[in-house]
Amino acid sequence: MSSTKLESKGDATKLHLLEVGAELIHQQGFNNTGIAQILKSAGVAKGSFYFHFADKEAFGIAVIDYYINRFSTLLEPIFKDQTLSPYNKISVFNQTFSELFTKNGFCSGCPIGNLCQEMSGISPTFAAKLNVALARMTSAFEQVIAHGIHVKEFKAELNPSTCAAFLVDSWEGAVLRMKLEKSVKPLENWFAFMKEMLLVV
Amino acid sequence: MSSTKLESKGDATKLHLLEVGAELIHQQGFNNTGIAQILKSAGVAKGSFYFHFADKEAFGIAVIDYYINRFSTLLEPIFKDQTLSPYNKISVFNQTFSELFTKNGFCSGCPIGNLCQEMSGISPTFAAKLNVALARMTSAFEQVIAHGIHVKEFKAELNPSTCAAFLVDSWEGAVLRMKLEKSVKPLENWFAFMKEMLLVV
Repeated sequence: MSSTKLESKGDATKLHLLEVGAELIHQQGFNNTGIAQILKSAGVAKGSFYFHFADKEAFGIAVIDYYINRFSTLLEPIFKDQTLSPYNKISVFNQTFSELFTKNGFCSGCPIGNLCQEMSGISPTFAAKLNVALARMTSAFEQVIAHGIHVKEFKAELNPSTCAAFLVDSWEGAVLRMKLEKSVKPLENWFAFMKEMLLVV
Repeated sequence: MSSTKLESKGDATKLHLLEVGAELIHQQGFNNTGIAQILKSAGVAKGSFYFHFADKEAFGIAVIDYYINRFSTLLEPIFKDQTLSPYNKISVFNQTFSELFTKNGFCSGCPIGNLCQEMSGISPTFAAKLNVALARMTSAFEQVIAHGIHVKEFKAELNPSTCAAFLVDSWEGAVLRMKLEKSVKPLENWFAFMKEMLLVV
């Protein structure tokens, strides 16, 4: 077997561990998910885990990168779609995630929001990485809001930066109540207030 | 010793367990806090814990009641203060909690929000109890908003019920980012948008 093949087999194992771990952590939280359970669910040996990750914290940080990439994969086609106005981009974003949440029974919520809640107070390493994740998410919305102001769809007096931060924060809060109420209603309510906040009357 | 004295000693132990457990769960999360740690921190024997609580879940539910009472103790004097206008009530609420969060180094966030994030997806018992907590919080704001509309300080077209839900959700989201950024800025940003949303221009 060539070293390239070996490397790609290793990469596939690493990705498989991340996929399985990301799902478990999303459902149960980080502290509630043990390495043993990840290994068992993934069907991977302990040695292979420690070949790829120094410890459980390093694995958690890699899982956040995995979440960031998955979020970008869902968000980018919407935000880059030139047939959608800025307002419709935000609407399609909310619809897309509402459908995803509905499909999984509203149980898991936003994996980034969950980890912010669970880990940012107790681990500076997690907090730093989650800050990057939330900043990327906010920056994507900031661009959409700035564009909306530019094309006069959104109110001229809005500050794209503070407005994007509020948009993301309030969405995370709506996702929290959605998990609790097992209903898409908080996300619909969020969007009604976003419409009021953003659109030129 | 009379039975009354015995009972009050038992009540004091129960309250002490709740105080210590509430603090640990607030800092570390529910799953990350073991009964052994609670007993050790409280200096209470195992038998005494199980005399008061059937299991860890029952303890967690009692801790939510403890959080609800603590929140009400802080909120009620503000919301019942007749010298404050509805807008100033919301402002003083945000200031009061901003100061509390600042004092504890922004680490713990909102204990109800934390448990919603951690437990509502995995425990229907927790979800039901947390729903009560969030509904009580929302109802308190709904009354303030309805009053604000009545005295023409707030916009006439607002729906107090959906507006209160959005206010609470977006505040929980702002608290989440506050924990992450270790700064009161997200709460200030939240208040600026609440002002815009509520006040008659």
